Amino acid sequence: MKLWDKGFSTDKKIDIFTVGNDRELDLIIAKYDVIGNMAQAKMLHKIGLLSAEENDALDIELKNILKTIENGTFTIEDTFEDVHSKVEHLLTEKLGDTGKKIHTARSRNDQVLVDMHLYLKDELAEIKQLTKDFFDLLIDLAKKYKNVLLPGYTHLQVAMPSSFGMWFSAYAESLIDDIYFLNAAYKITNQNPLGSAAGYGSSFPIDRKYTTELLEFETLKFNSVAAQMSRGKLEKSVSYALSSISGTLSKLSMDVCLYMSQNFNFVSFPDELTTGSSIMPHKKNPDVFELIRGKCNKLQALPYELTLISNNLPSGYHRDLQLLKEGIVPAIQTMKSCLEMVTFSLEQIKVNKNILDDDKYLYLFSVEEVNKLVQNGTPFRDAYKIVGKNIADGKFNPDKKVNHTHEGSVGNLCLDEIVSKMKKAFQE
Amino acid sequence: MKLWDKGFSTDKKIDIFTVGNDRELDLIIAKYDVIGNMAQAKMLHKIGLLSAEENDALDIELKNILKTIENGTFTIEDTFEDVHSKVEHLLTEKLGDTGKKIHTARSRNDQVLVDMHLYLKDELAEIKQLTKDFFDLLIDLAKKYKNVLLPGYTHLQVAMPSSFGMWFSAYAESLIDDIYFLNAAYKITNQNPLGSAAGYGSSFPIDRKYTTELLEFETLKFNSVAAQMSRGKLEKSVSYALSSISGTLSKLSMDVCLYMSQNFNFVSFPDELTTGSSIMPHKKNPDVFELIRGKCNKLQALPYELTLISNNLPSGYHRDLQLLKEGIVPAIQTMKSCLEMVTFSLEQIKVNKNILDDDKYLYLFSVEEVNKLVQNGTPFRDAYKIVGKNIADGKFNPDKKVNHTHEGSVGNLCLDEIVSKMKKAFQE
Amino acid sequence: MKLWDKGFSTDKKIDIFTVGNDRELDLIIAKYDVIGNMAQAKMLHKIGLLSAEENDALDIELKNILKTIENGTFTIEDTFEDVHSKVEHLLTEKLGDTGKKIHTARSRNDQVLVDMHLYLKDELAEIKQLTKDFFDLLIDLAKKYKNVLLPGYTHLQVAMPSSFGMWFSAYAESLIDDIYFLNAAYKITNQNPLGSAAGYGSSFPIDRKYTTELLEFETLKFNSVAAQMSRGKLEKSVSYALSSISGTLSKLSMDVCLYMSQNFNFVSFPDELTTGSSIMPHKKNPDVFELIRGKCNKLQALPYELTLISNNLPSGYHRDLQLLKEGIVPAIQTMKSCLEMVTFSLEQIKVNKNILDDDKYLYLFSVEEVNKLVQNGTPFRDAYKIVGKNIADGKFNPDKKVNHTHEGSVGNLCLDEIVSKMKKAFQE
Amino acid sequence: MKLWDKGFSTDKKIDIFTVGNDRELDLIIAKYDVIGNMAQAKMLHKIGLLSAEENDALDIELKNILKTIENGTFTIEDTFEDVHSKVEHLLTEKLGDTGKKIHTARSRNDQVLVDMHLYLKDELAEIKQLTKDFFDLLIDLAKKYKNVLLPGYTHLQVAMPSSFGMWFSAYAESLIDDIYFLNAAYKITNQNPLGSAAGYGSSFPIDRKYTTELLEFETLKFNSVAAQMSRGKLEKSVSYALSSISGTLSKLSMDVCLYMSQNFNFVSFPDELTTGSSIMPHKKNPDVFELIRGKCNKLQALPYELTLISNNLPSGYHRDLQLLKEGIVPAIQTMKSCLEMVTFSLEQIKVNKNILDDDKYLYLFSVEEVNKLVQNGTPFRDAYKIVGKNIADGKFNPDKKVNHTHEGSVGNLCLDEIVSKMKKAFQE
Repeated sequence: MKLWDKGFSTDKKIDIFTVGNDRELDLIIAKYDVIGNMAQAKMLHKIGLLSAEENDALDIELKNILKTIENGTFTIEDTFEDVHSKVEHLLTEKLGDTGKKIHTARSRNDQVLVDMHLYLKDELAEIKQLTKDFFDLLIDLAKKYKNVLLPGYTHLQVAMPSSFGMWFSAYAESLIDDIYFLNAAYKITNQNPLGSAAGYGSSFPIDRKYTTELLEFETLKFNSVAAQMSRGKLEKSVSYALSSISGTLSKLSMDVCLYMSQNFNFVSFPDELTTGSSIMPHKKNPDVFELIRGKCNKLQALPYELTLISNNLPSGYHRDLQLLKEGIVPAIQTMKSCLEMVTFSLEQIKVNKNILDDDKYLYLFSVEEVNKLVQNGTPFRDAYKIVGKNIADGKFNPDKKVNHTHEGSVGNLCLDEIVSKMKKAFQE
Repeated sequence: MKLWDKGFSTDKKIDIFTVGNDRELDLIIAKYDVIGNMAQAKMLHKIGLLSAEENDALDIELKNILKTIENGTFTIEDTFEDVHSKVEHLLTEKLGDTGKKIHTARSRNDQVLVDMHLYLKDELAEIKQLTKDFFDLLIDLAKKYKNVLLPGYTHLQVAMPSSFGMWFSAYAESLIDDIYFLNAAYKITNQNPLGSAAGYGSSFPIDRKYTTELLEFETLKFNSVAAQMSRGKLEKSVSYALSSISGTLSKLSMDVCLYMSQNFNFVSFPDELTTGSSIMPHKKNPDVFELIRGKCNKLQALPYELTLISNNLPSGYHRDLQLLKEGIVPAIQTMKSCLEMVTFSLEQIKVNKNILDDDKYLYLFSVEEVNKLVQNGTPFRDAYKIVGKNIADGKFNPDKKVNHTHEGSVGNLCLDEIVSKMKKAFQE
Repeated sequence: MKLWDKGFSTDKKIDIFTVGNDRELDLIIAKYDVIGNMAQAKMLHKIGLLSAEENDALDIELKNILKTIENGTFTIEDTFEDVHSKVEHLLTEKLGDTGKKIHTARSRNDQVLVDMHLYLKDELAEIKQLTKDFFDLLIDLAKKYKNVLLPGYTHLQVAMPSSFGMWFSAYAESLIDDIYFLNAAYKITNQNPLGSAAGYGSSFPIDRKYTTELLEFETLKFNSVAAQMSRGKLEKSVSYALSSISGTLSKLSMDVCLYMSQNFNFVSFPDELTTGSSIMPHKKNPDVFELIRGKCNKLQALPYELTLISNNLPSGYHRDLQLLKEGIVPAIQTMKSCLEMVTFSLEQIKVNKNILDDDKYLYLFSVEEVNKLVQNGTPFRDAYKIVGKNIADGKFNPDKKVNHTHEGSVGNLCLDEIVSKMKKAFQE
Repeated sequence: MKLWDKGFSTDKKIDIFTVGNDRELDLIIAKYDVIGNMAQAKMLHKIGLLSAEENDALDIELKNILKTIENGTFTIEDTFEDVHSKVEHLLTEKLGDTGKKIHTARSRNDQVLVDMHLYLKDELAEIKQLTKDFFDLLIDLAKKYKNVLLPGYTHLQVAMPSSFGMWFSAYAESLIDDIYFLNAAYKITNQNPLGSAAGYGSSFPIDRKYTTELLEFETLKFNSVAAQMSRGKLEKSVSYALSSISGTLSKLSMDVCLYMSQNFNFVSFPDELTTGSSIMPHKKNPDVFELIRGKCNKLQALPYELTLISNNLPSGYHRDLQLLKEGIVPAIQTMKSCLEMVTFSLEQIKVNKNILDDDKYLYLFSVEEVNKLVQNGTPFRDAYKIVGKNIADGKFNPDKKVNHTHEGSVGNLCLDEIVSKMKKAFQE
């Protein structure tokens, strides 16, 4: 049964082409469709288009459907185009005309919009929490390893002394910037689009403030055309936030893969987190981090995909927009699993504590030596030349101690300040 | 003079390849470099590395340089690699060793970071204001034309009645979502990176809280490695915000170009804003809106460019990052000019007030007729079939009045609520 | 069973994270894995590492597996990581040690490479044929409707006379450019990577020229490191070709959607190819073309996704590359279905033959009138002004006949030349 | 003077917004505009629209202009919109009405199309040659260093023995795939669009086959609408080819940057090709390769930018297309300089000949040892376990000799076959 069926026979091939894998994706958002239906029913009752009995009957049936979703028995058969028609079918089967009435002053486009706003709002909240959990781990690791030194690189050349404390907490602080984008995307999801109907509102006297309260949105997307335009824009906004976090995780994973190489040998992981090779018995490969890197890099392509689908389309609904779901929904799942996996894996990191014993890291301390001369009165450019000459003459023999004291240096990580900044960002 | 010159001859070709058009771009950010230098000098004085006299001398010279930047006489000759070496040269020329000393506890990377944070922070504030100005215009236009009806389309098919009030204010409300991203990007710029040196801090006891105050940043990017990692991430974050606004302007421009076509004929503009053709004397082309659309579409490619440049690079500085500037700086200029131009142009829009007189728009009212039957007691699906049959039989003769009353509909634009929402977003 | 299992327990969550939906995708390429195995067995026999009996036994079993793939009964259970381990399992189950031996001088990476080269080679050939079929239809339509005039637009403004003959055959000729890219991608697939093992070749005296013959590749990807580097590059190359065709189909679909709007009303389709609306009974929406447009736009994001996954990875295999498959395989399926659907749908197009009767298209002929004056001796710029004045004065009354004669104009479509060009391109 | 000026005053701001940096870009393609004008004049003479005297006069003046372009004195002042109006101005200034007549049966769009086809055709030929030059160098380096061993990595883990011969020639062979795309793009440029006028041809009996000969195009883009549609498609096609080469250079540069790190120390370069640091006296940074990597990564964003500008625009010219030039022209320059610079730099590479002396590379030979056992009759899986146990027990003591003999292995690079393949590809 299709809602728009007017009796024409429709070629099966067209059906497959147009429906795609919507049914599978719709199972993930089904819960939100039912919640949207409940609010719609209550509101129709409030404005007199449904009787109290009808509303009660609908509410009971919708709760039953919700239970089947929660216990995993809800299905969308091939005879239904999507979750919306399946739910309407279930209601009509049980309640007859009452089941039909719930569609008053609403279109499927309206339903997709409200489902996606509710779904993405919930998921962003969860992603924000997962990001915070990962932040907490990084701060813990920074505390634990704050005194273990690490070479700092510029241009992939050995440059200046760093530490695992610096490295872990750098990624922690960097995640705060991602939170700002998550907050922005969250605000965008937190606006009720229900009532925009096909994108131009309805002639029924619907009460959108009431559904806003019922659905616990902070505000309305007031203008019906703006609500419709949020299809595409909403998904893109969320994808920017996902890209932001993804960039952070991807960079960290690149560091880890490099640091696990025999040429660095800075960190290692228990065997459960590495894999061997079908042909090289000694290998312990960082597959988990390679896949986090790869998946997070793929996630960064999502804004482009969503932009290409929706770009240069004039205002008003177009069927192209249906394709947004098959990009954003799996991306949300991938983002969550990457955050879970990076947290799970990094918890088990083993840190090599004697890295700087190797002579190739000697020159890390050249700037320190320059600075010591400067602090004793030598002009910077001259100190720079003296140390340069010592190095050239093979007479460079530094004291391998790092005496940095300023905010954000090896000796003063400012972890409390970073934690405070995150706390503030998290609450915004 | 290059700071890193150690006496090797450097092939001219390499020089051109490596320096690129940095000098030209650096003129745009020169102001911020001088401001950064002023704060650095004051801080070095505070921690005892510069005397009061040295600090005063530097301050005077830096103010002189700032004047040349403001009056347009500041230049970066081919003998200088960038603004940083030019400024150091000017200081050293005047003040000898004192001019050199300002580079204590700092690297060029540090300078680029602080310049870009200051520059982007200022520009985002301006872009936010320009977005607000455009929002105000759209609200004014929505008020002015709230009663002029317009066909609403879905699938580019004539669908339901809309209005110019709806159309203008839809874009206004949509801009609020863009403000959320501008706010997020602004927060990211508003963190002082100065003092991260080459990305691992310094052994000098620099006072980063003091430069944070002097430079009027809200907070520090504490961790020096995080500050370094913001190179690339900062620019990408800003580019997401620019992409968000660009998507809104591009969509509006597509609407305008379509609505100016003889096949729609909904809006027109004075001759100054249209162009003719070298071969077709009757043409009045919407070049300004086509270029806004094209430029805003190009802007939406910026995150991809910046991502590709910085992605999969391990932590720590890489020379690749130099290329970020040549993407983000012109993009900022383009964004501002697009906002100015779309505001300037839309102010002059002329609206066709009798669009719906044309018979092809008759069916816009089919849903209204369905709904009337429903409100008089006919079940929705039956009403839908009755009106469908009337249309099929050529008996559809609707009353062309739109009686929408709910929030965000043609009859109830909620402009005050939208203005309040923008006000709140703007102040965040 | 995992090939690299060394007895460590592996957390289920990691398993799901690392295996992903590989099993499902592997069903699509299973056929090529078996074909690759057959060639590998024959070659190992030729160089004496398998006996004739072993090779025969493997060949029989592999043919049995191939049959199950062809009749749809082949499966990859959750206990297998991928098609490679399932096939090895089936062989070992039946043939014991002989089943294991087939993996001699080969790695899984090697297998994926050969599978993907064979798979993409076959699919590109099919896509090329589908493109040619669509080209043939467009040429037929151009012939059929060569005399039906259509307004030509510039800037979406009515500009000059065109025809359906021009419009259809423009897309036909445009497809030839896509064929050039398909040919380039095909050449890239047509190089045998088998024998590169883990990316550095093997110490066994394998005969790669023999497998090249057996697998019907035109040549070898000789260098083993180059063969390994083709992972990612191969997929990207194919994605450029798909993007090229997609751009053509997307543009055509945009034209169709516009031309179906009541504001153009140039073309229509039977009801089977349009959809209605759940709330607007009169609608006939171009969903099929919107979905072709949307899917083809999404396809154009694929190179970006594949680039982001593989970019800035040093040479040598990385696990990230596993993620390429989940991008390219569905894209191939989508491309084929879009080509089939656009051909199927456009076959049924109905063309409005009286478009130019509408007065708004009068000015199409202004250039013709200018040119007539020029051909009668008036300088171009003067003729241009005369016609411009006539139009301004409401005295423009053109003869609506198009007398274009040059190559590629309305009166001289050069369809034979275009067909010849395609023929040549197709055979390259 | 603007061609379409009809006496309206045009606001200066609009002028800047609409003209952009076209004048600067147009200097680069000016030569091709003049060549296109010459062909146009000759053709107009052939069909009787210009007298022999007029044609001769135009030819002389156009040659004069060409000389000023070649000697660098040609300029486009701010009073001219683009190269086309400047050239027309110069001709009209000298030749009066004859200068105007050259615009007969042509539009500016037509001129841009022919200029870009000619320009890109020439540049692609040059890029192809530069790619071939780089290929030749890589083959030379492979020959020179074919016996110098290098660790081969998978997952960035030490994996199997490779060699500089393998490494250099891998990139050489990989470039052949890029040549296929260059050939495809070249074919697309090699079609004459001149005569398509504003995209719908002309009512003048122009002779497009004649201009095709004069301009040395292989064939026509016959259909005028197809010729117009090549605006955007042409640039995108070229950008795919540039992206393909860029991906190869970028990956090579990543390898070089990694191999120059103290943690690898595989290769080095003379001081002229590295840079120091303003704060770390011992540094020798691979700036050239970092910039090649960065620039080539940026180039890979170009198809996205061009796609976004042109995507979802209905057929027919739109002003947005003007923005294509500012993407593609600098990209061509960057591509050439990257190819020149990578060739120039790699010529000077110094290779570390004793890399494998380091014990961390011992396990490279594990597979060799497994294979030896297999060749002596041990089943693969058992051999794999024996060597694995030896490694675990610290008893692994391999012979560091690489006895690979198959095609494309360390011992059999097949350089002649690779050179032949390139030769064939180059001539296609």
